[in-house]
Amino acid sequence: MRKISKVGRIVLGDGRVAIQSMFKKPLRAYSEASLKRLYNMGCDIMRFSISDESEDEIRSFVRRCDDLFPLVSDIQGSVSQAVRSLKAGCSAIRLNPANFRISDLESITELAGERNAAIRIGINEGSLDDRSDDAIIRFFDDYVSFFESRRFENLVLSVKSSDYSRTLFINRLIGERFGYPMHVGLTEAGDICVSAVRTTMVLCDLIKTGRIDTIRYSISGSEESEVRCAYEFLRTLGNASGDFQIVSCPMCARAGADVEEFDRMVENFVFDNFDIRGLNLKLAIMGCPVNGIKEAEDADVAVCATKSGYAIYRDGKLECNVCEKTEFESLFVETVSNAIKERAIGRKSI
Amino acid sequence: MRKISKVGRIVLGDGRVAIQSMFKKPLRAYSEASLKRLYNMGCDIMRFSISDESEDEIRSFVRRCDDLFPLVSDIQGSVSQAVRSLKAGCSAIRLNPANFRISDLESITELAGERNAAIRIGINEGSLDDRSDDAIIRFFDDYVSFFESRRFENLVLSVKSSDYSRTLFINRLIGERFGYPMHVGLTEAGDICVSAVRTTMVLCDLIKTGRIDTIRYSISGSEESEVRCAYEFLRTLGNASGDFQIVSCPMCARAGADVEEFDRMVENFVFDNFDIRGLNLKLAIMGCPVNGIKEAEDADVAVCATKSGYAIYRDGKLECNVCEKTEFESLFVETVSNAIKERAIGRKSI
Repeated sequence: MRKISKVGRIVLGDGRVAIQSMFKKPLRAYSEASLKRLYNMGCDIMRFSISDESEDEIRSFVRRCDDLFPLVSDIQGSVSQAVRSLKAGCSAIRLNPANFRISDLESITELAGERNAAIRIGINEGSLDDRSDDAIIRFFDDYVSFFESRRFENLVLSVKSSDYSRTLFINRLIGERFGYPMHVGLTEAGDICVSAVRTTMVLCDLIKTGRIDTIRYSISGSEESEVRCAYEFLRTLGNASGDFQIVSCPMCARAGADVEEFDRMVENFVFDNFDIRGLNLKLAIMGCPVNGIKEAEDADVAVCATKSGYAIYRDGKLECNVCEKTEFESLFVETVSNAIKERAIGRKSI
Repeated sequence: MRKISKVGRIVLGDGRVAIQSMFKKPLRAYSEASLKRLYNMGCDIMRFSISDESEDEIRSFVRRCDDLFPLVSDIQGSVSQAVRSLKAGCSAIRLNPANFRISDLESITELAGERNAAIRIGINEGSLDDRSDDAIIRFFDDYVSFFESRRFENLVLSVKSSDYSRTLFINRLIGERFGYPMHVGLTEAGDICVSAVRTTMVLCDLIKTGRIDTIRYSISGSEESEVRCAYEFLRTLGNASGDFQIVSCPMCARAGADVEEFDRMVENFVFDNFDIRGLNLKLAIMGCPVNGIKEAEDADVAVCATKSGYAIYRDGKLECNVCEKTEFESLFVETVSNAIKERAIGRKSI
């Protein structure tokens, strides 16, 4: 049995998988451009951990994100934070049963129901005194029963551990037992390398259960890296909303430039200018034009760092050679725009 | 049928999986400390792309790496580079059949045989004109036959693509058909996020074939990130040579510090001071002592960035609070050393 829940306009439980990340700094630290970039990268839902923000501050942030993504407020164990968040228009709250008395839930449930907000019951194994399967199931049994008895069923469930096998086991159990949409990820997942590897291993296994509805790569790093990983996982499976693909060379002593830095620069141009949803485009970022372009010849647009500057290729053919960064930026954006337009025209004419 | 090959002291084909990475800068750019760090992180084999280095320069680098890892020289299609590398003492060369005439292989094969060096026949899909399965199999058939007819069987095979499904299919085919040890990875794999996700997905699938002997995460990033990803993949499967685990929090608005930077600092201390082989230790790196320590209480050593400095915990109990970075560094290394010693004593007394 599969149930459907809604976090704002994002439907969970219908087979699609939504990409989620979490703001790591206080809300006021985010510029419009940084929010738009997260959206452009494919982010569907953002969470934030509420601290001292007033209802008005949250409301204003909800509005700023309105065209981009619904917001989930992480209230951990605070009733007042839950109330503030729901009144301010957040699309969901996440509460941790380990920090929350069930008796405090009456008013929150009523308010969430009125506002069509979802509630995520999210356990972190690390916050439990008793970490046995039985204890975890009891938590969910108690909380799910409480909400269902109040006819509140707009629920999302999650149970996170930093342990691989444990995560697989307990997620299968909870997903199967309750049928509500599942938010899947690890906790204390590590830096980019460790979290990307470990989370992918978990998702590769759990995706087969058909009970993954929204995913987060928790990373000791930027929100962008969390969204990038999640998008790449879904894209590789053919499950992402676009088919935008970046390939880039790992660099060797032959490279004309620092490929890592070049890659970051180019990716930033892309995500600052284009929404990857529906962007059916392959982009190659190469450190050396000698082998690079042969290897990137099936890319729609390829860029190479050369010893003297940058080169831009369309469909494997050199389009232009530039030496200045600013000139490269505008020509690159123009080339990608043209590639997209021509593809769109090509499609219509078929 | 499974064959065994040897890259220096590293045996391939016996079921263990060796971690491989590649130098991204000219050899002279690497300090002793940076080489030692790669070794400490679990690296088994390093490759480099030879360019203008003389035989003496390579020989001197081989010696510098002698206690750390065998070296593979990437000669692509140059006979003279192959000869220089083998004479200088490299443990293997990698050649790309797409760039190499089979008629040029006589002298190289003889020399590799004399020096007990391995040869990797490594195809990158991107360097082929004809990328069909048939063409790839023909390359391997021709080259493998050539070497076997000269009684040279110290071979490693690899075939890399940037495409997920293609990589799975062709690796299964080649691994099964020839039985030689396989080096597995992707080419043009992307930045840390994209490569870590995509390569993990490939490895999760191929590991089941039992035909993965050495792996590389190609990343548009540092060698360290490549080794970290590979180690974490093997560790999670229980296949790594140690059981050293790092967990770290993904940071939220409650964090006392930039966890990404703090994490990098702590990891550098670890890898500069300790070899992870056989290091049975769990380390937690947390951004907030409030939730953090509860979540990290099963770690042997936990460190927290606090608003005023750093805190170090042993087995969930506060060991010390410091505010200066330099003081933190020495106390941290001391705490980890003590934890290792006590564990070693504990083991002996049982």
